Amino acid sequence: MASFVGEGVERIRARGPLVHNITNLVAINYSANLLIAAGASPIMSEAPEETAELAAICNALVINMGTLTGHWIAGARAAIGGARSAGRPWVFDPVGVGATAFRRETGAAILALGPPVIRGNASEIVALAGSAGGGKGVDSTLGSEAATEAATVLARSAGAVVVVTGAVDVITDGSRTLRVANGHPLLTEITASGCGLTALMGAWLAVLDDPLEAAAGACAAYGIAAELAAGRAQGPGTFLPCLLDAVRALDGSEAGQRARLG
Amino acid sequence: MASFVGEGVERIRARGPLVHNITNLVAINYSANLLIAAGASPIMSEAPEETAELAAICNALVINMGTLTGHWIAGARAAIGGARSAGRPWVFDPVGVGATAFRRETGAAILALGPPVIRGNASEIVALAGSAGGGKGVDSTLGSEAATEAATVLARSAGAVVVVTGAVDVITDGSRTLRVANGHPLLTEITASGCGLTALMGAWLAVLDDPLEAAAGACAAYGIAAELAAGRAQGPGTFLPCLLDAVRALDGSEAGQRARLG
Amino acid sequence: MASFVGEGVERIRARGPLVHNITNLVAINYSANLLIAAGASPIMSEAPEETAELAAICNALVINMGTLTGHWIAGARAAIGGARSAGRPWVFDPVGVGATAFRRETGAAILALGPPVIRGNASEIVALAGSAGGGKGVDSTLGSEAATEAATVLARSAGAVVVVTGAVDVITDGSRTLRVANGHPLLTEITASGCGLTALMGAWLAVLDDPLEAAAGACAAYGIAAELAAGRAQGPGTFLPCLLDAVRALDGSEAGQRARLG
Repeated sequence: MASFVGEGVERIRARGPLVHNITNLVAINYSANLLIAAGASPIMSEAPEETAELAAICNALVINMGTLTGHWIAGARAAIGGARSAGRPWVFDPVGVGATAFRRETGAAILALGPPVIRGNASEIVALAGSAGGGKGVDSTLGSEAATEAATVLARSAGAVVVVTGAVDVITDGSRTLRVANGHPLLTEITASGCGLTALMGAWLAVLDDPLEAAAGACAAYGIAAELAAGRAQGPGTFLPCLLDAVRALDGSEAGQRARLG
Repeated sequence: MASFVGEGVERIRARGPLVHNITNLVAINYSANLLIAAGASPIMSEAPEETAELAAICNALVINMGTLTGHWIAGARAAIGGARSAGRPWVFDPVGVGATAFRRETGAAILALGPPVIRGNASEIVALAGSAGGGKGVDSTLGSEAATEAATVLARSAGAVVVVTGAVDVITDGSRTLRVANGHPLLTEITASGCGLTALMGAWLAVLDDPLEAAAGACAAYGIAAELAAGRAQGPGTFLPCLLDAVRALDGSEAGQRARLG
Repeated sequence: MASFVGEGVERIRARGPLVHNITNLVAINYSANLLIAAGASPIMSEAPEETAELAAICNALVINMGTLTGHWIAGARAAIGGARSAGRPWVFDPVGVGATAFRRETGAAILALGPPVIRGNASEIVALAGSAGGGKGVDSTLGSEAATEAATVLARSAGAVVVVTGAVDVITDGSRTLRVANGHPLLTEITASGCGLTALMGAWLAVLDDPLEAAAGACAAYGIAAELAAGRAQGPGTFLPCLLDAVRALDGSEAGQRARLG
C-alpha cells in the first residue's frame, strides 16, 4: 500500500520538479535547501509583478504565510491565480492563523481560493476550520482527537486534503484518512520545521497524482529523514545539517521500507 | 551573587516565554533557532497590521534595526506601542546606528520611546549616546573605557539598562554596573551574533524581574554556550550548529558555575 | 601567473574591506557569513533611504536580484548611483534574469548602469546578452561553448568583465579570457552557492585593481574551499558549515598552489 512513498522519492529525484515558494523569511533558506536535497528545483519569489507569470514555468506552488505582509498577500494572490489558470497543484500553510485578526482574515481569504492541500499544526487547523464555518475556535491546548475532527470538517467544507502534523501526522480528504508515525522530537526543536515539510509537499504534488498520497508521502519521507538524522546529531543545531544530508541520501527503497503508515 | 544566571536558564526552559521579534533579515532564522534552543517560543512578524495586537499574547518584545526599512519602522512603532500598553518588557538593538542619517534618526526616534534595555557594540552605544545628547559622536576606534562612559551616560539619560558587548560585556543602569567575562572569539566570526544575544535577552526579560540581571544573565549564558561550542567547532561554520546545541544543552547549574561576573 | 589568487586571499584578510550587499532573502545570511569568513566586513541594506550614503563608507557593492521587488529596485538604483559617484567597484548577479518579463526588464536596466563585473550561470548570461542586443535568447539547455560566446559578446557590449560559472568557470573581458577549474559538485546542491560567490567577488574587487583577476581569484578561492570542505562533508547539509570553515582557514599560499587557472 505504501509503494507511493518510494515512488514519490524516486520521481522527485528523476524529474526535478520546479517548485515556486511564496514563503516566510525564517524558512526561505531552509526550504530552498530542503527542496534541492530532495531533488527538486526551488524558485523563491513573492513579487506580484511576476508571481502569476512564474506559474507557467513551475510544476507546483507553495503558499506559506509565516511572515505575513501586504506585499506577501499581493504576491500570493497573483501566484494562486496563475496556478489555478495553469492547472498547477498548490499547498497552503496557514502559519499562526489564529494569532491575530490580520492572520484570520488572510487565512480565510486564501482558503476561499480553494487550496488543494492545507498543512498546519493542530491549533492552526482548528483555527482555520473555525474561520471556514466549522464551528471551531483557536485552542492551543486541544488534543489530537479535536484536531482530527477539525481536519475532517475543514477537508469537507474546503474540498481539500488537510494535513495536521504532530507526533502522528493525520492526512485526510474528509472521507479517506491516512496516519504517518514517522518523525523525531528534534523536528520540534528547530524553527521552520513544518514550513520545510510544506515546501516538500509542493514537490510531491508535482510528481504524484493523488494529493492525499502526495501529502502523506512527504510526511513519511521527511519523518524518515529526521529519524536517520537524529542518530547523527548532538542537538538541534547539528540536527539541521544532518537532516539535509539525510533528505539527500534517502532513496525510494529505504523510504518505502521505513514508512509507518496507518 | 550570580544565582540569577542559573535561575534564568531554568525559568526560560520551564516557562517557555513567547518572544516577539522585529528583527533583521540576516538574523531572523538564527534568532528563532536560538530562542527555541533556550526554551522560549519565538514569533517573528513586523507587519504593522498585527504587531500591536501580538503584544497582548507575547511576554517580551525584541526590536532590532539591522535591515532597516520604512515597513520595519511602521511595524516596530506599532509593536512598541502595544508592548507599552500591555506592560511588556522590550529590548532595542540599534544595529549600525551611526552609519547613516536614516539610522541615526530612527535610532533616536526609538530611543525616545523608552526602551527598558538597549544592547549594542561599543560604536553603536557611543553613537546612540551622542544622538541622545550625551555629547559623543561615532567612533569605531574607541576603547572600552569610552564605551563604558557612554553607556553610563546613555543609561541615565534614557532610564534604561545599557549593554555594551565585547571581550568583556558591560551592563549598567547608570548606577549599578555588572561585567561579564564569558564568551569566545568565534562569536566575532559569525554574522548576527550580537543580534542573537539581543533576542535571547527578550526571553530573559520575560522571566527575571530585574532587567540588569536579565541582561547580564543573557550575556553570561550565551558566552558560556559559546565557550562550550568552541571546543567542538573547527571554524566559524561548524561553530554555528555547535552553539545551538550548547544553548540547548546548558542547564542552570552549569551556567551558574561557569558564569564569570564582576 | 596565478600569484594574484594568493595575493587576493591575503589582502582581504589584511584589509578587511567593507562590502555593501543588496542581495536576496535566501542568500543574505550565507553571504554575510562567507564575507566574514574570508576576512571582509559585510553590510546588508537595501533601503533606498540609505543605500547611496553607504557607498561613501564601503569599499565595494554587490547587487543580486534573486528575490526581486520594487523596494529592491529603488535601493539598488540608489546604491549604484552612490557607488558610481564614489568610484567604488561593483558586481551584478542577474539571478533568473530570463525567467519573467519583470526580471528581463530589471536586468536590462541595471546592465545599462554599467556594472564593472557580471556573474551568472550559463542561462543567465545568455539571457542577459540577449537583452543587451547580442541576439541570444534564454536557453537552459545550452552548452558551455554558447555561454562562452555569449559572455564575450556581453563583455564587449557592456564593457564589463563577465563570469559564467559552471564545472569550469569562464571569466572574460571580451579580449582576455581566464578559466578556473576549481570547485566541487556539492556547490550545485546548496542554495545561494553562486550568490555567495558573487558576494565574495565584492571583497576581491576591493583589494585587486584588475577586475578580471579579482573575479577569477574569487572563483578559484571559493572553488578551492569547496574542494577542501567536500572532504569533510557527508552531504549538502554538512557541506555548508564545512565550506565556511574552509573559507576561513584558507591562506594565500595554499590558494596559490591549488588554483587551477587556464
